[in-house]
This record gives sequence, structure tokens and C-alpha cells, in this order.
Amino acid sequence: MQPNSIARVAAFCLMAVCALDVNAQGPCLTASKFGPTDQIGNVNHITPEKTLAASKLITKGKAYRLGIETNKDTPAYPPRTFAITIVQPGQTAGASLGPTKTTYNDDLINGWAGVGSQLDGLGHIGIDNLYYNCNRSVDFVVTDGLKKLGVENVPAIATRGVLLDMSGYFNSEIVKEGTAFNRVEIEGAMKRQGIKSIEKGDVVLFYTGWLKLIGKDNKRFGSAAPGLGRDGARYLASLGVAMVGSDTWSFEVVPFEKDAGVFEVHQILLPRNGIHILENINTEEMVKDQAWEFLFTLGPTRITGAVQAIVNPIAIK
Amino acid sequence: MQPNSIARVAAFCLMAVCALDVNAQGPCLTASKFGPTDQIGNVNHITPEKTLAASKLITKGKAYRLGIETNKDTPAYPPRTFAITIVQPGQTAGASLGPTKTTYNDDLINGWAGVGSQLDGLGHIGIDNLYYNCNRSVDFVVTDGLKKLGVENVPAIATRGVLLDMSGYFNSEIVKEGTAFNRVEIEGAMKRQGIKSIEKGDVVLFYTGWLKLIGKDNKRFGSAAPGLGRDGARYLASLGVAMVGSDTWSFEVVPFEKDAGVFEVHQILLPRNGIHILENINTEEMVKDQAWEFLFTLGPTRITGAVQAIVNPIAIK
Amino acid sequence: MQPNSIARVAAFCLMAVCALDVNAQGPCLTASKFGPTDQIGNVNHITPEKTLAASKLITKGKAYRLGIETNKDTPAYPPRTFAITIVQPGQTAGASLGPTKTTYNDDLINGWAGVGSQLDGLGHIGIDNLYYNCNRSVDFVVTDGLKKLGVENVPAIATRGVLLDMSGYFNSEIVKEGTAFNRVEIEGAMKRQGIKSIEKGDVVLFYTGWLKLIGKDNKRFGSAAPGLGRDGARYLASLGVAMVGSDTWSFEVVPFEKDAGVFEVHQILLPRNGIHILENINTEEMVKDQAWEFLFTLGPTRITGAVQAIVNPIAIK
Amino acid sequence: MQPNSIARVAAFCLMAVCALDVNAQGPCLTASKFGPTDQIGNVNHITPEKTLAASKLITKGKAYRLGIETNKDTPAYPPRTFAITIVQPGQTAGASLGPTKTTYNDDLINGWAGVGSQLDGLGHIGIDNLYYNCNRSVDFVVTDGLKKLGVENVPAIATRGVLLDMSGYFNSEIVKEGTAFNRVEIEGAMKRQGIKSIEKGDVVLFYTGWLKLIGKDNKRFGSAAPGLGRDGARYLASLGVAMVGSDTWSFEVVPFEKDAGVFEVHQILLPRNGIHILENINTEEMVKDQAWEFLFTLGPTRITGAVQAIVNPIAIK
Repeated sequence: MQPNSIARVAAFCLMAVCALDVNAQGPCLTASKFGPTDQIGNVNHITPEKTLAASKLITKGKAYRLGIETNKDTPAYPPRTFAITIVQPGQTAGASLGPTKTTYNDDLINGWAGVGSQLDGLGHIGIDNLYYNCNRSVDFVVTDGLKKLGVENVPAIATRGVLLDMSGYFNSEIVKEGTAFNRVEIEGAMKRQGIKSIEKGDVVLFYTGWLKLIGKDNKRFGSAAPGLGRDGARYLASLGVAMVGSDTWSFEVVPFEKDAGVFEVHQILLPRNGIHILENINTEEMVKDQAWEFLFTLGPTRITGAVQAIVNPIAIK
Repeated sequence: MQPNSIARVAAFCLMAVCALDVNAQGPCLTASKFGPTDQIGNVNHITPEKTLAASKLITKGKAYRLGIETNKDTPAYPPRTFAITIVQPGQTAGASLGPTKTTYNDDLINGWAGVGSQLDGLGHIGIDNLYYNCNRSVDFVVTDGLKKLGVENVPAIATRGVLLDMSGYFNSEIVKEGTAFNRVEIEGAMKRQGIKSIEKGDVVLFYTGWLKLIGKDNKRFGSAAPGLGRDGARYLASLGVAMVGSDTWSFEVVPFEKDAGVFEVHQILLPRNGIHILENINTEEMVKDQAWEFLFTLGPTRITGAVQAIVNPIAIK
Repeated sequence: MQPNSIARVAAFCLMAVCALDVNAQGPCLTASKFGPTDQIGNVNHITPEKTLAASKLITKGKAYRLGIETNKDTPAYPPRTFAITIVQPGQTAGASLGPTKTTYNDDLINGWAGVGSQLDGLGHIGIDNLYYNCNRSVDFVVTDGLKKLGVENVPAIATRGVLLDMSGYFNSEIVKEGTAFNRVEIEGAMKRQGIKSIEKGDVVLFYTGWLKLIGKDNKRFGSAAPGLGRDGARYLASLGVAMVGSDTWSFEVVPFEKDAGVFEVHQILLPRNGIHILENINTEEMVKDQAWEFLFTLGPTRITGAVQAIVNPIAIK
Repeated sequence: MQPNSIARVAAFCLMAVCALDVNAQGPCLTASKFGPTDQIGNVNHITPEKTLAASKLITKGKAYRLGIETNKDTPAYPPRTFAITIVQPGQTAGASLGPTKTTYNDDLINGWAGVGSQLDGLGHIGIDNLYYNCNRSVDFVVTDGLKKLGVENVPAIATRGVLLDMSGYFNSEIVKEGTAFNRVEIEGAMKRQGIKSIEKGDVVLFYTGWLKLIGKDNKRFGSAAPGLGRDGARYLASLGVAMVGSDTWSFEVVPFEKDAGVFEVHQILLPRNGIHILENINTEEMVKDQAWEFLFTLGPTRITGAVQAIVNPIAIK
């Protein structure tokens, strides 16, 4: 064998050894604290008691629509596209149906699920094809729908929501790209806002102002973002939060932190800790109202085998 | 001209006169009580006071997921189809991204919006191409998205929900197709269940057991259904409800009532009264728990220009 | 009734009378010379004798590929879009199939048929919803595929092709938009090129240089074009040609001629004369080679119920 | 390390060594005889001389349409689906365009390219992610279109076609599934039909009768097939044929021959020899006419970056 080839075999074997970390030693890297058949992760922490307590946070009855619009112009992670087509079946030449002249419009969607406000399901991100709770892609990923971890498994979400105003914390209308939120920043924001705790089963949302860039500087919008860092991810995981989200496309800080892997924060949250991620979540009005703690509700579209879902969560304060 | 032709012209002119009823006399047939620019209808009745009061209905903190699954096998009104495709961009030959070997799945949706649990937007049904609030299709219907009445306009929905157990009322596990619910049945069910009132801004849901047919008798499921009749629709409209829904594909009774138009109940609700309709809404568990009055929440996907949306409302009791 | 309304009824009735021209007098306006069940039009003129004679036009054996590329950047008539997605089913994590490690790519198409080089089928254009051979849209247009006139009916096309070099005729690298080709120009070009005749069953292609604009000035490309005028259309129809085509998006002259209807040339050709139209057909190399008369072959994709087809005809000289 | 793990590393390393056969020793396994930049394979053998000679095979002028229909009911290799949607943009309420009341239908395609009669491009099948002419998937496979080997590169195809009537050879209306065609059978069929040779640049088609199963026994149709075996593939490759095809979904024999890999015949033809494959090609009428040698023409749809194309080749005798 040529030296080049020997080196290649050696590298291959080394990778094999490293791969063992992912796949072969004892319980797998992504084993769930909720048992070997769990598919939903930390949303298991949302109990009726939790929901009931969260409903008491409602003081005004103001409901906030947290989703942005999804259409062909929504900036999206390449190569994602989106299109809707409106049709009027059977109504050519002005035809209508029946004595009361019923007419109707119908619609077709042709687009990627990851466009606009979205929920990353637990089947979205993996570590070398190992996904949440020891699911290897070869076992559950099928072209016409995930066999495990699909978004249709997500239960009704109604829990305490906590909004961290990073724009206020950094005193910047739009927090600069590359700004990482770690434990220090999270605790600092909580203190500034008078939020006493982040608890098990919470949904934690970050406000950065980043969505203001859509339609003004789509290039900047999609090329980087402020967001959670690895230390912050581990910290929130230690608190047992159910979901996290922000008003950016990436949720985590981009460019990634020094020495961080590609979307490593996603890896810490989704496969390693079963924490769902929400992106492009618009909390601007809530920040204006200083609605820091609230009832957060979400029913993601139950498309069987879906990796992600276009969402529009409702917060109530 | 031949006699046949003369008759045709006469008919044409007659239709023109009738058409005037729809289009030309005074305020149009579908003028909104909320003013000429309104696009959302009776959801305008959902005020913060209404939401706050509804939140007090939560006693246990139990959250119910009301959406059914949507996939290629979900029975749907022809010629609707649905498909999801899972892809792994850039990860051929076992490639992963970066030092932490990030891998990911992405998904594409190719399907009609009206498959599974759905919200009918105010752009869905018209009367001879006249839609809610005097919007004529020629003015707002464009192939790549409605210019008015799109589902993206629907505000955050958090309001009092009322569940009418028609299965219990008729003492039938699955209420028979063709059974119409009108004022008598509505009031009868309320009385049976101890529901004192239906109020302005409520979301009224009907349970019939019809969803049990999916997977057992799809043909029967999709060919008919029990549901609201015209008198019932006018009654609920008089009460100012925000939305109505049921666990059938059609919401309204099919076959239609004697002398009724095609989906005439839809016409009474959507264009004439600005009341949104929800279909295939699964309230089976709520009926078991006798959760008759509750907080109903819904954030429909904000796809710009959409006629309908696949939904998964969350009810909390 | 108000004066305004009376005027409207009057107008309605007038339109009804005009409408009679389309629908009610004797044989309909678009009745086919090939009988009441014909769905393919003048391609009926392509007989084996015609094909055999055309094959004798081959002198060099040079085969020309007349289709341009179709992709998401191809300028197209709004709101048409096009996307292709490449997938590798079942091959996550570097998996392959079997002992010889078979791997494969597959592809999905999500796009409008009318993007790139296309064939307009006889179901594409109508006159007030009356299509070729008395087919009214209400009778044959269904949302999931035309019941008549679909492109799947087109027989194998192998016939004499005639290429008219309008760029040479007008001595202009790119013929100016709005330049109409009528009988004078057609005969003039034939004379200049030494083409003795245009015959029944021929496919007549026009070269204008218009395709050179793609990628350089897509806006100009799609906003106008040189092309056939009404007189030219009637002239070619009188000669019994099977198909016509050009290297523009519209085939016919845009802006339309004075007093012409919208795409009226299409109406003269498709519904009135059963002559198929080809658009964005690239004959640049043939013009360089002065390949004026040749064997033209085309097998349009046989998608059932299709209105149009993306094509790539082969010419052989 | 546990014994199990050691075994796994060992296996991993062994695979790495085997993998070297594909990737690292000398010129790669799939290097093209046409040079390192070639993307089209043996169609390079189709010269003008070849085309001219093939045109002389036309004696009657009869043109055959070899494509079958593609629609949602066409049996296809899972999970492929296909749908077409017909729309009438801007024509709600009977609207038409302009003084001549132009109306039109448009169509959208949402489906996999590999449905119906298809051409497998050189980017379709690989050996452990190594494709034709040393193209590794990581280098050319991108989610929104292949960067190399896309079907848009295929030149105009006009060459000698040879039809082998295997149904006649085996004296069976439908040749049994699992029947392999190798050199003996190929030469036997040629002898029986009086075909003297198969030459460089030919397109060789096999007729088996298999398409008769569509609509009668789709399950049998798609579960197996008669077809080319490995020896036959190597034989045809040695003759330098440009393309091969048959009237089955798989082209090659299924079940695969003893000890054969998964679609190994595809691997011999596409990546190893640059020979395109055609599937579901309907030559039934040609067999009736005993049209054994003919002009074969094909212009595959030039969708940029496509792996496959739905085709409708035209044969002329």
C-alpha cells in the first residue's frame, strides 16, 4: 500500500475509535432520562400542575401572536424555498356549485418546513447520525417521513414562558451578531428584569431585535445572529427547560463560538438533552409590554414524520 | 336568432338581475359589522377581558391536543393530496459537518392545506365569487396567494371554548351521518351538559365521534357526516361566536338539508358572518373528561395569502 | 333599479349576445376539421409518407438539441416557479445497499410545466373557456388533470421542419420586440433562404435571437418579443402546418398588434386551428449551419392530463 | 475496550481497506474512456455518420411513440409519487383576458422524476458514492441539483436502434420475472430476428411484454422483472452501445442473479461504462411490425441538475 493509503486507513480507524464514543460505549450519548422509548424529551416536564400554575400568570388577558409570516420572500437557510398556489377546482368559466352559487378557493403548499417561525423537532439535528434517545438515522429516517421523533409526537404545550430581553440587557436595539448568551448573560437579564427563576418545564425565549432586519437587510439577517452559546445551553439544560427559542433564524450564536462545532448548541439541546428549539419567534410586542412571565401555548402542526414545523405560538399575559 | 338562443339570452339576463343581489344593491351581502377594511370577522369579539375570563376556566391544568395527524393516508376532500419528503442536504457518503459531526434532517411539504385538522379562513368559501366583507374574487384572489382574507391575518386566539357532546345528546357512539344540529339540538346539548350560555367571542366545538371512522371506514368517513344545519348556523351567528368546529371533515351536515345549497352552512358562517370554521378537531378525550368549558388557544400557521391552515389547537381545562 | 344597475344588466345581456358567437350558433367556433372526437389537431397531417420524405432531408446526420435548460433561474411567465430536489433515500450515515455498495440519487420536481422550452397543448388556450374542438372548460378541465386535450394524446412527431431565419431577414442579431411576422415577412424569409414551400404537416420554427437575452437581460426577455402576427397565423393555418415555434417565450409578437386580443395569435393557432405552439426553442446553431429544412422529431412527456410539456425537440440535418 | 467494540473497530478498518478499492488506487474505478471531464459517457459514440446511417434505416416513415403515461396511478419504485395540478390564474368568476376573451389553463408538476418511462442519467447510480468518471457524491451532489452528470448534459440522441424481442425468443407473451438476458440470449434473439450486429453507439431495447401488467397486476409489475444480467451488461458494454432500455421498471433482472449486488447491472452500465438506461419503454407496436432496426431519437427534458428524466423517445422505421 502507498503511504498515502496507509495514512488513510489509519485515519479511518481512528475515526472508528472516536465513533465509538457516539455509538458503542454503554448507554449511548443521547440516552434519554425519560426512558428508552421516549420521543419527546423535556416537554415531559410539563405537568398539569405546571400548566395550572402558568395559567395564573395571566393578569391582563392579552394574547400575543408569536409567529412571523411564511412566504416565498421569507429569508431561509439554503436551499429552502416556499410557495403557495391558490386554486378553484371545478369553477372554470364562472361556474359555481348549487342553488346558492357556492364558490371556493383551495390551496397547495410546496415548500420546506423550515421557513419562517419554526419548531425544530428532536429528529432535526444529530451527532454523526445519532439522534435523540439513541435513535440512529439508519433506524428511523425514511424518505417519506421519520419513523420516530416526528413532530406529530409533541404533546399539547401549555406552560410557563419566560422572556429574556437581551436587547435591553445589552442596551442595543438589535443585539450584534456573534454575541453569545451564556450563564452570565442569562442571569444578568433575569436580574435586570426581576425574573426570579427559570424552572423545569419552562419555555425560555430570547428577544434580540434580529427580526427587524427582515425586509431591510435579508443578507445580514441570514448570515449571522446573536444567540445562545454552549455554556448557556448546558445551563438551561441543567434547569430542565422544556423548550427554548429566539427571534433569530439560528437560535444559537453565529458565528459559532471559538472551537465550537457546527450548530453545536443545537446538538447540546436537541439530541443530548431533548430540548426543542424555536426560531424566528417574534416577541417584540411582549417586550414593549414587559410581559416577562406568561402562559406559553403551542400546538405544532401534526404532520406525520415531520422533522420541523412552521409554528405560531400564542403567549398570554 | 333561434328560439333556443333567445331563451339563453333571456336566462343570461335573468341571472344578471339575480346577480345584482350579490353584487350591486346598497351595502353588499357580505358587508362586515366591523367595518369595510376588516379581514378577520368575529374573532374581533375576543378581547383581553374575554381571554382573562376564559383563563379562569382552567381548574386542572390539563392541556388537550386537538389536532389529528396529517399524512398521505389522511382521507381528504378530492382532489387533495399530501406528501412529506425528508432530506439530508450535503450529507452524502456519511458526511457530517464540522468537528462535532453535525448531521441533520430537513423536510419538504408538498400537499394541500386542507388535509387533516384544518381552519377554514375567510377566503375559503364565497357566494358566486363574493367573499367576506365585499371582497370579490377578481379583486383579491391571485394564484400565488390571496391579497386579502389570508390566514396570516388571524390574530392570536385565546378565548372561551364550549364543547357540545352530540354523541352524548343523541346517545350514539358515532352520531349518524345526515343528522343536523340546529338550535333545538344545541340548546338541548347545553342543557344536558349544564352549559349555561354560549357567548360572543366563544369557540364552539361539536363532538360526534366521527373521527373514529378514520382507518376503519374512510369511505364512509368522507362521504357524509353529522353536523350543523342552517338554523343552527344562524343561531350561533346571532350569538356572535368567534369560531365553530367539529370532529368531521365537513363541519356541516352532509347530505345537506332539504333545499339547502352546496355547503350553504359554510356560506352562512364564513362570508356572511365572518365566523371561522375548524374541521377534524379531535375532542374525544375532552368528552371523556367532561371538559365542557375551557380555554381554547390557536395560532394558525401564518402562511401569507393562505386560504386554510393545518391546525392543532390547544384546549386547557 | 338605479341607472347604474340598469346599465349593468344591459351590459350583461349584450355580453350574453356576444357570447352566443362562441357557444350557440351551429357548429362551434373551434370545431375540428378532423371530426368531433379529435384531440390532436393538425399533427394528424403527419403521415408515414410525410415522415419518410422528411427523413430524406437528412444529409449530414447532424443532430441538434433544441431545448434550453429549465431551472429555478429560468425566466418564466408569472407566477410560474420551478425547483428540483435531489434525495438519497435510505442512505443516511453513508449507508449503501448490498455487497456492491450501491448508492443512488433520486429527484423530485416541484414546478410549473410552462418553464423553459415548452409545448403548448391544445388545452392551454381558449376563447371564453371554449377550447379546441368544442371542448368547454367545464367539460374537460379538472384540477388533477385535463380529461381531454392532454399532452399525453400527442402522437410521435417526426416530420419536415422548416426554419425561418428572421434575424437574417431583418439583418438584426436580435430582432426587435414588437416586430410582427406576417405573410409578407414569412414569404420574404423563405425567398431569402431558398425555401420553396411550407407544406401541410410541417413544423415551422422562427429564429429571432431572442434567447440571447437570457442571463443578460431577463427583464427585457420576458416583457416583450418579436413574433408571429395574426395575419401570419392565419396564413400558416391555411397551409395546414402541424406545429409552429420560436425562440421566444411568447411565440407571438408582444406587444400584441393594434386591436389584437390578449394572445390572440395563440387563439388562432390552438383552439381555432389545432396547431400546437413551441416556445423557447433554440435554433441558433441550426442557423449558423443554414439547416433550413430538416427532420424534426419530438416526443413530449406523456404526463396524463397535462396542459403543457417541457420539451427538448431533436432536429436532424 | 470490550471485545464487541474491538471487533467493531476491526470491521471498520477492514471496510476502510476495501473502500480503498473504490477510491484510492491509481485511476479510479469509474474513470471514463472519454477523458477526465466527460459527463455523458457512451453517447459520445453517436457521430453524424452514425446518425446519417441510422436515418437510412427508415423505410416506411412510421413513427412510434415509446413513452407510457405518467400520472398518480403509474406504479413506481417507492416512495416515489406524482401529481399534476391544473390552474387558471386570474380567471375567477368567469373572467377572461381582453377583447377576444382569452382564457387559459396552466399546470404544476409535483412528483418524482422516476415515474413512468424514464432515462437514468449518469448521476443516478454509484458504487459507494463513487459515480461515473470519478465523481464522488460529496463533490457533485447538491440538494437543489447535481453539479455534474445532470441530464441537461445529454446531447441530441439520434442513432441506430436495435429491438430485441425476448418475448419472441422465449416464446412467452410476458417473459417470466427473474429471467436473465445474457450474451447467449442476446445473440440468440439477434439470430432469430436476423439482426447481424450490435454496434458502437447503438441504443439497444429489449421487449418482454412486462408493461402489459400495468393496470392488471401492479403488484407483480413492480416486484420483479425479466431483464439484463451482469454478463449481458458486460457484453453490451464491450460493444460500446450508447444506451440500453426495456419495457420493465428495473431494466435489469429482478430478483438479482445469484451473488449479484443490488442493481449491480445498473452499476456496470452507468458508473462503470457510461451507458444510459431507459425504463418502461413501450415497444409493443414495433414488435408487431417487426421493426427491429430503426432510427432512435430522444431529447430528454433539460432540467438542470436532474438525475433522471421522464421521457418519450421516438423511433422511426
